[in-house]
Amino acid sequence: MAQLAAYGLAMTARETADRSAGQRTSELRRVTRAIAVSRPGSRMLDWSLAHLNRIVDALGDEVTGAEIATALRSAADSLAMDAQLDHAQIAQHAAALLPRPDGRPLHVLVHGDPGALTSGIVGTAINALMLRAADGAPMHVWVTETRPYLEGARLATWELTNAGIEHTLLPDSAVASLLDAEPIDAVLLGAEWIAANGDTANVIGSRAVAELAAAAVHGPVPVYVCTPVTTFDPDTPDGAAIPADVRPARELGTFLTGVRMDKLRGYNPGADVIPARRVSAFVTEMGVFTPTDGDGLRTALAARSDRRQASVTAVPTLAGDD
Amino acid sequence: MAQLAAYGLAMTARETADRSAGQRTSELRRVTRAIAVSRPGSRMLDWSLAHLNRIVDALGDEVTGAEIATALRSAADSLAMDAQLDHAQIAQHAAALLPRPDGRPLHVLVHGDPGALTSGIVGTAINALMLRAADGAPMHVWVTETRPYLEGARLATWELTNAGIEHTLLPDSAVASLLDAEPIDAVLLGAEWIAANGDTANVIGSRAVAELAAAAVHGPVPVYVCTPVTTFDPDTPDGAAIPADVRPARELGTFLTGVRMDKLRGYNPGADVIPARRVSAFVTEMGVFTPTDGDGLRTALAARSDRRQASVTAVPTLAGDD
Repeated sequence: MAQLAAYGLAMTARETADRSAGQRTSELRRVTRAIAVSRPGSRMLDWSLAHLNRIVDALGDEVTGAEIATALRSAADSLAMDAQLDHAQIAQHAAALLPRPDGRPLHVLVHGDPGALTSGIVGTAINALMLRAADGAPMHVWVTETRPYLEGARLATWELTNAGIEHTLLPDSAVASLLDAEPIDAVLLGAEWIAANGDTANVIGSRAVAELAAAAVHGPVPVYVCTPVTTFDPDTPDGAAIPADVRPARELGTFLTGVRMDKLRGYNPGADVIPARRVSAFVTEMGVFTPTDGDGLRTALAARSDRRQASVTAVPTLAGDD
Repeated sequence: MAQLAAYGLAMTARETADRSAGQRTSELRRVTRAIAVSRPGSRMLDWSLAHLNRIVDALGDEVTGAEIATALRSAADSLAMDAQLDHAQIAQHAAALLPRPDGRPLHVLVHGDPGALTSGIVGTAINALMLRAADGAPMHVWVTETRPYLEGARLATWELTNAGIEHTLLPDSAVASLLDAEPIDAVLLGAEWIAANGDTANVIGSRAVAELAAAAVHGPVPVYVCTPVTTFDPDTPDGAAIPADVRPARELGTFLTGVRMDKLRGYNPGADVIPARRVSAFVTEMGVFTPTDGDGLRTALAARSDRRQASVTAVPTLAGDD
């Protein structure tokens, strides 16, 4: 979403390049708001919009529309490239963190689609599984459907099939049963927004998966949240302060047959909040952090922002293909 | 299922009434096995099959096929009639147990379809809600989809609509979010099999709902299991000993669009086990029991069996319309 948002603003800048400064500014503001409200609760999306708008502000009033368009296209490219590098590092850290069970395959449960289809080119958690599979480690991945949008059933299974990794689909409702029935070694999740206290918003159903992992009959299963450090927001005190993303009720019926949503009210939140105590570790491009290590995350975020700032400064020399 | 099983055996007895005693017995055994394996893990189903086969045994070798057919049809009618009376009593007990919040509507979460469409004519938990609504109590019912067979989305919402009760559908994955967002007063569930220690098998996803109800941010939400006392089996020590019902993987795709199950492995358990500590009360036709009150349940079960025995003895005078 962060990458899409950046390119959305870059395209707006290109389309308005020939208009007056006032019209350009007004249109960039309108599109920024439209993208922001399309997906509340995505920290990376907000971060990306703020980042690109800061670039516009920094350019000042003396630049042409064409120069703004070039700068934003470069910034979007840079942001997307950074994301791929980040995700590759996250995948490496996660692959190193996954247990190596003796004499049997590694069993991993994935909720949502923490893969390339939702994160760009590289993917985070699913890329970690690909790295481990490339090592020759026998593995079985359990994928929740992830209702209502079926990111697991439609996206994650497609990615795992292409990667040649054995996997099995299950309804979200069967997670508790699975955790008792199979020797699941780890749960891999992504994140939309991490609060200062470690509470973590992620695709709806994540909290249930994390609570059930903690309550598994054979003992707690570790929950690793694989995410860029920029999803951490030190200014959001806790999960209750993370913006909610309630989707239209009619979308509950999008992938179902036999249920007429036009006749029904629906409750369709896009995300829920995993309490910090249910997160075993945050796996970021800046390393692995315990959920209560707010200082570590703050330091990593600052270091990461410096790196981005450096790459943004360097942007003009990377552009030119627009 | 118990009622369907009883009528299945009664129909078999009618169809084989003109055959030899050996053929009749063999066919009843075959159908008994076929019904039993169609749905492992349903205590009422097993109980019903055993009950009707005991009646056949008790009739001895001197009866005609027509007499067996009449006896089994009567037994099935009696079992179905008993079930309706049981369910009506369960509904009354549950309606009395539900809280009466001051100054706002009662909020109830239902998982699966504990209503007439799955239990005969009367229904258990949904009938309880209808009783409370008839009292004029303002109420809102939250209904999970109950993947993969969508008993909530397809059946419970239909029943609640017909009953004129306000309700909202949510994906199973949104239960944790709902429990934090709304003042849910109670969770109502059914049961497939209750072990001696109170562990309770019910439609898949029930364990998650019960665990999340216990972990709700605003404090634990009571979980009431509404079920005939005959789902209690004192010979099953605990949840691990309850027979599992793993359904065909291809059925995961039955109500979905955009997911090709022919290409995917699937994990599709029909039920999971709620630990006894997550059950607030069993609401039965013999009264309300705490989950650890094995003695109370045993006594109630024995009393209930005596009542059934009495009604079975009285059956011949109720038959004759076959």
